[in-house]
Amino acid sequence: MVQTPTYPLNAWYPAAWGHEVGRALTARTICDTDMVLYRRTDGAVAALEDACWHRLLPLSMGRLEGDQVVCGYHGLVFDAGGRCTHMPAQETINPSACVRAYPAVEKHRLIWVWPGDPAKADPARVPDFHWNDNDEWVGEGGTFYSLKCDYRLVADNLMDLTHETYVHAGSIGDEAITRVPFEVTHTDRTVTVTRWMEGIHPPPFWARMLGRPGTVDRWQIIRFEAPCVIAGDVGVAMAGTGARRGDRSRGVNGHFLAALAPETATTCHYFWNFVRNFRKDDAELTRALNLGHVNDGKGVYDQDYVVLEAQQRAIDRRARQPFYDLNIDAGALWARRLIERMIAAEHGGSPRLAAE
Amino acid sequence: MVQTPTYPLNAWYPAAWGHEVGRALTARTICDTDMVLYRRTDGAVAALEDACWHRLLPLSMGRLEGDQVVCGYHGLVFDAGGRCTHMPAQETINPSACVRAYPAVEKHRLIWVWPGDPAKADPARVPDFHWNDNDEWVGEGGTFYSLKCDYRLVADNLMDLTHETYVHAGSIGDEAITRVPFEVTHTDRTVTVTRWMEGIHPPPFWARMLGRPGTVDRWQIIRFEAPCVIAGDVGVAMAGTGARRGDRSRGVNGHFLAALAPETATTCHYFWNFVRNFRKDDAELTRALNLGHVNDGKGVYDQDYVVLEAQQRAIDRRARQPFYDLNIDAGALWARRLIERMIAAEHGGSPRLAAE
Amino acid sequence: MVQTPTYPLNAWYPAAWGHEVGRALTARTICDTDMVLYRRTDGAVAALEDACWHRLLPLSMGRLEGDQVVCGYHGLVFDAGGRCTHMPAQETINPSACVRAYPAVEKHRLIWVWPGDPAKADPARVPDFHWNDNDEWVGEGGTFYSLKCDYRLVADNLMDLTHETYVHAGSIGDEAITRVPFEVTHTDRTVTVTRWMEGIHPPPFWARMLGRPGTVDRWQIIRFEAPCVIAGDVGVAMAGTGARRGDRSRGVNGHFLAALAPETATTCHYFWNFVRNFRKDDAELTRALNLGHVNDGKGVYDQDYVVLEAQQRAIDRRARQPFYDLNIDAGALWARRLIERMIAAEHGGSPRLAAE
Repeated sequence: MVQTPTYPLNAWYPAAWGHEVGRALTARTICDTDMVLYRRTDGAVAALEDACWHRLLPLSMGRLEGDQVVCGYHGLVFDAGGRCTHMPAQETINPSACVRAYPAVEKHRLIWVWPGDPAKADPARVPDFHWNDNDEWVGEGGTFYSLKCDYRLVADNLMDLTHETYVHAGSIGDEAITRVPFEVTHTDRTVTVTRWMEGIHPPPFWARMLGRPGTVDRWQIIRFEAPCVIAGDVGVAMAGTGARRGDRSRGVNGHFLAALAPETATTCHYFWNFVRNFRKDDAELTRALNLGHVNDGKGVYDQDYVVLEAQQRAIDRRARQPFYDLNIDAGALWARRLIERMIAAEHGGSPRLAAE
Repeated sequence: MVQTPTYPLNAWYPAAWGHEVGRALTARTICDTDMVLYRRTDGAVAALEDACWHRLLPLSMGRLEGDQVVCGYHGLVFDAGGRCTHMPAQETINPSACVRAYPAVEKHRLIWVWPGDPAKADPARVPDFHWNDNDEWVGEGGTFYSLKCDYRLVADNLMDLTHETYVHAGSIGDEAITRVPFEVTHTDRTVTVTRWMEGIHPPPFWARMLGRPGTVDRWQIIRFEAPCVIAGDVGVAMAGTGARRGDRSRGVNGHFLAALAPETATTCHYFWNFVRNFRKDDAELTRALNLGHVNDGKGVYDQDYVVLEAQQRAIDRRARQPFYDLNIDAGALWARRLIERMIAAEHGGSPRLAAE
Repeated sequence: MVQTPTYPLNAWYPAAWGHEVGRALTARTICDTDMVLYRRTDGAVAALEDACWHRLLPLSMGRLEGDQVVCGYHGLVFDAGGRCTHMPAQETINPSACVRAYPAVEKHRLIWVWPGDPAKADPARVPDFHWNDNDEWVGEGGTFYSLKCDYRLVADNLMDLTHETYVHAGSIGDEAITRVPFEVTHTDRTVTVTRWMEGIHPPPFWARMLGRPGTVDRWQIIRFEAPCVIAGDVGVAMAGTGARRGDRSRGVNGHFLAALAPETATTCHYFWNFVRNFRKDDAELTRALNLGHVNDGKGVYDQDYVVLEAQQRAIDRRARQPFYDLNIDAGALWARRLIERMIAAEHGGSPRLAAE
């Protein structure tokens, strides 16, 4: 069976939180590519192919020596550019002896790697994730490493929040979400889904955050940046106080943040955070919001986790059956279309684009 | 590799005990088909495709609302006929939005489903299993769900009881079984293997049941009904008291009952019971007979379980090697032949039948 | 994908330690061939195909009756030559009813089996392993059954000891190994790698064994006998006392011994020992040397184990990528070449040999 790629290679993907990568060797698979990550003595992060040129032992099983990696089997040494600088028991080093080096940058508290053509890697194109690392916003997130689903299922999930009504009833779900129309706009690299629910009773979570009785205007403005980042501007303000026109002063505002990396075609790494711009010094609230998302099966992302893996298993059992779409899928479908365009561009264009 | 189907789809298969299906959603796979089972408010059982039309999430992860199933992801609602009656955030429902509904009936204490063409499903053709639900017979059985073997290996096992001598030595096995000739007859849908062992010393189990010293006439009359039910009329009577001619009044009689459902080509569900028409009020005996069959590895069916799964593993390792047959396999071979005829009939007939 | 065989079938492979095979049935897979091993009443070892002719149940699940095996399902009986001598419920035995019998011999404390053409099995060709069973040498070894790597990776490992410097730093590893040249010679069936490190400081292990201060002459003379045995003559003597010229009287000497059997293309059984000709009555030393090799993750072979399985996983993920070779691989490459010749010879010769 010929498999269509599910991800572009020429893209920045999150590989780790910055604080996770230090002077130890960290193995990570991104886009079916095994990498070893480490921090050089100058603080920059290096990412090399995680297989020795000689006999394929993962370099992550070796050790760091300065900025170089020593293979744990026969002691070949590779510099941060992937070039072999030492071979055991021989003076001459085969000049073709090297492992691949992947562009890597640290930005917005995450390490981003580029598994594709290094010549095309422009650090300025790392997806916008500034809410994750900014004085205006505070929050502590987490990671689902090796989540057993196609990363695009997570994007589907976050681009359509009507699922909150069913998966997250009792916390952030609300019937209003399914009743109210929404708008989808897009650019070459982004999709935005905007939904305003005006004059509604807030769901339990937002009522607690706002801390005032009465109806609210609630917004969900979700921005996808291809191929792998979703940032959702969400909040409520007292009804009729002008939030929709730009005055959020009588409300509370947060962003849910998701940076996704395909590990394989059917597994992914999901870096998440939920940041807010209110009660920023309230560490207990920060902790409670973290646990509200992931808490040993009881958080809202734990609920999504179960759904996403079950959905992937169902897809695996029915390789050829297509999904059918609803109106609510408009945002997710545009997100997938932008991903497909990136994939097609790597393969010399595609007739699908013309027929679009 | 082209795989020959191992089961017909146009057939009634057991999917659950009646008491197991209620107002909760039960997932079950029959013939590689994922189903969700539930009991409607009128008491009838419904079986739907266990994958939402929209994004494939198993409907069994959703919830019941009256007679309808609400998907746990986006809230699509399906009625017991599989038709979508509600979509989130839209008024118009795509008329083609539906999941498959499978004919299901409750009979003889089991739920039977028909994974094939619904137009051909005739409740009158549910295999005879009346011993399982009849005042004349008493017994408590059990189920091996997801037994890791082709369901036909279980049929092979039960259609030839010479294996009792080796697998069940010390309880129901007896050298006499391998010495005595047997007779095989068949119709379009049934195979019957009849073996009479006259004037023999009873094996330990039957000696205890009869409760009288001396030799016995022992019978095993095993009836297969294609494709999935085996009922074995077994017992002993005092030797020479006319059991073979029809007078079983000086004996004890039971039926081992097996209703099989292929789960996949190499796994199956095995619903079993052992019923008797003597000491019917003796609850302790009922319990002892249940434990005699399945008891944490010590029952006779536990012994078969180990053999059947080992046999399947051996087959998996040698995909192309045929079985070789003995005289004792005559009944099992006829059973397989009837199954093959049903499969061939679904595929427009087969040259094998002509060459038979 | 057409897979090249990784092992010849016409060869003696180790299947068990002699003391492991008695009057119980032992299942073992050698070269993807399931065998059942047992000791006959005359003390000789028999090896039969581990699948009944009739319905494929592993014969190892049956029982011994004299020198014959009784199948645990329907009681077919096979003699030590694999011929069926009893069938249930029938007088006549199909003369073609038999299972394969494999030549088996016991030598040097191991049971060796020949999975290929029995007519070619010459007990005189069992690889030399005499150090394992000889008054001159003492030691207690062990086995890694079902080690998850191609057996040739173990041969690679043992034919090039520069890996000691990196995998076994702190015990037997030493920088000297990678600095000193070595010599490779070969015959039709053997490869020998010889390395002398003269006037060096001994690594910790050998310093303790020698028990005298000062520099040493250290040797590693590793002999491979195709396709599956490696014996390494290793030791140290006081520097300049003539060890290289043959006088080892001022030194200590051991042999590491490895007998390998492919279980499948990617798993193997690895029978090992380390024998010595000094302090032969010191049982505590024998025990310490055993634990030095395998000790719940802390022995030197435990370290190799981790490397070998990681290497196999890396190979599995990159089926088409070749290894690249270093000078240090010369011995291992010759070992692989002899194995390939044996494989080619079984398939009617190979153009590779001409092009060599």
